[in-house]
Amino acid sequence: MNDEKLTRIVEAVAQQLAEGRGEEKSFGLKQARKLIAMVEAKAKTMGLNIVAAVSNEAGRPIAIECMDNSYIASFDVALNKAYTVVALKMSTKKLSTLAKPDGPLYGIQHTNGGQIVIFGGGDPLIYHGKIVGGLGVSGGSEEQDTALSAYGASCLDEIMNEN
Amino acid sequence: MNDEKLTRIVEAVAQQLAEGRGEEKSFGLKQARKLIAMVEAKAKTMGLNIVAAVSNEAGRPIAIECMDNSYIASFDVALNKAYTVVALKMSTKKLSTLAKPDGPLYGIQHTNGGQIVIFGGGDPLIYHGKIVGGLGVSGGSEEQDTALSAYGASCLDEIMNEN
Amino acid sequence: MNDEKLTRIVEAVAQQLAEGRGEEKSFGLKQARKLIAMVEAKAKTMGLNIVAAVSNEAGRPIAIECMDNSYIASFDVALNKAYTVVALKMSTKKLSTLAKPDGPLYGIQHTNGGQIVIFGGGDPLIYHGKIVGGLGVSGGSEEQDTALSAYGASCLDEIMNEN
Amino acid sequence: MNDEKLTRIVEAVAQQLAEGRGEEKSFGLKQARKLIAMVEAKAKTMGLNIVAAVSNEAGRPIAIECMDNSYIASFDVALNKAYTVVALKMSTKKLSTLAKPDGPLYGIQHTNGGQIVIFGGGDPLIYHGKIVGGLGVSGGSEEQDTALSAYGASCLDEIMNEN
Repeated sequence: MNDEKLTRIVEAVAQQLAEGRGEEKSFGLKQARKLIAMVEAKAKTMGLNIVAAVSNEAGRPIAIECMDNSYIASFDVALNKAYTVVALKMSTKKLSTLAKPDGPLYGIQHTNGGQIVIFGGGDPLIYHGKIVGGLGVSGGSEEQDTALSAYGASCLDEIMNEN
Repeated sequence: MNDEKLTRIVEAVAQQLAEGRGEEKSFGLKQARKLIAMVEAKAKTMGLNIVAAVSNEAGRPIAIECMDNSYIASFDVALNKAYTVVALKMSTKKLSTLAKPDGPLYGIQHTNGGQIVIFGGGDPLIYHGKIVGGLGVSGGSEEQDTALSAYGASCLDEIMNEN
Repeated sequence: MNDEKLTRIVEAVAQQLAEGRGEEKSFGLKQARKLIAMVEAKAKTMGLNIVAAVSNEAGRPIAIECMDNSYIASFDVALNKAYTVVALKMSTKKLSTLAKPDGPLYGIQHTNGGQIVIFGGGDPLIYHGKIVGGLGVSGGSEEQDTALSAYGASCLDEIMNEN
Repeated sequence: MNDEKLTRIVEAVAQQLAEGRGEEKSFGLKQARKLIAMVEAKAKTMGLNIVAAVSNEAGRPIAIECMDNSYIASFDVALNKAYTVVALKMSTKKLSTLAKPDGPLYGIQHTNGGQIVIFGGGDPLIYHGKIVGGLGVSGGSEEQDTALSAYGASCLDEIMNEN
């Protein structure tokens, strides 16, 4: 094998490794905007006007949209759901069970300055096994919000894999 | 007056009324999203990563976006600017003068649960002489934020006149 | 009584007083740091990343540490547990029973500006029958947090008796 | 060149790249603890009892310690300084100038739910040109706190470069 060939091989290895690093795609505004649009489109098919909020992996908000005629109260609810799911690393649906009067975390909604939401409609956004953000949806029934945030979370791979 | 003439008159009146009604274009999520996109594009040309928040005519948030690498603190600042400009019907730049220690509104920032911002970067959104919403921008210097929110406010006619 | 004898008596009394005073060992940052380290070590053996907070006898925080990858929400929870156990002179586990909807203290979590936590994971630190501080742990299940704060409280004598 | 040699070269390249990746040292509890210890040691030489708080790159607290006999009020002050410097990407000393009554950000302390501190004693922690966390110090005069947080920030390279 000559040096030229070697050089090419080494370059190929370097590129593959670099690509490996490149795979750590970041979750930012572009992805959040896309996610919100998908959740809103789904909400529309259900006849709902919702608020969708997306936070980053530290629970800090990235983007929020309030569909026309959504509830005024839904802004805070969606925003706080997006925080809760990252801050506690679980869906607000799962938390709702733990936070019931006979559950082990009853009262947790009073511990974080009003930012913990204990009913469905929030899901952590998990990509390659890591929480990269949170989604909070508010505007329908708890069942509908829960379905919508779960739907949104299920779209993440598709969104992250777009270039 | 014959029937034909009468019909024409009635039609004309109806059309004028319809046009009149049509002119009351509403400011909602679609318009807020457009406005945010324009402000973000402008910020990009200035080398800034900003947070832009838009509220409706009641000061309730419609949409917020945090550009990647914007300040964490800018979320609350932009959101509250969008509230302030509607709640007080003036830009936060104008308010900044009134709220100085020797100004007539000194202390107003303590009156609304921490929602009043007294430095530039917020502008009411005025369409046909009426406040239809508010825009808050945070991420650059006060001068830059002020320029950006003024720019955003100046885009409103164009945005409202799109179909 | 001769002078020599007198001298010996005075010295003995002085020493006893000194020893008596010495027994009033204070609970401060050094002890809090030690306690947190012991709780963290225990948490590690349980595969947990927790937040541990220690307060003094006035319920004021002395030290807090967030293990890497602990819950964001755990900071406030642990801090407030450390306050609660001193403020109410009982473990948060005991309080959890009293604060249930059919318990005598139902609603107490609303009385102290969001600082009262009503689920397990907090224990008063008792030394020689006196509360000298509080420990709050958050990061595992309620059962695990309860075990960890109880463990921490049980370490107090050892910690206080170190020089 | 034979295959064996090639294999060795490729492995070496891979390792170098992996090490390159490894250089992205993370700032966590271990580093925060070290930083706090260094600031406390310095404070001791100045005859001060301070509170030192360290946050991560998202402004979330990692660790806080209150030296014995420090001010009760210093806990919140230090914690909020550690938030402020990350949330606004500047020292609280620099912010103090901007937030003066005749400064462009006058009133900013009211915009983030009481978390913005506008006097010296907080510094962003910058490693390889990137903010990895924040340090807040409270307990001395503003000048002393400013000197201590600046000192702490200057220790970061040394801390990060320890294994």
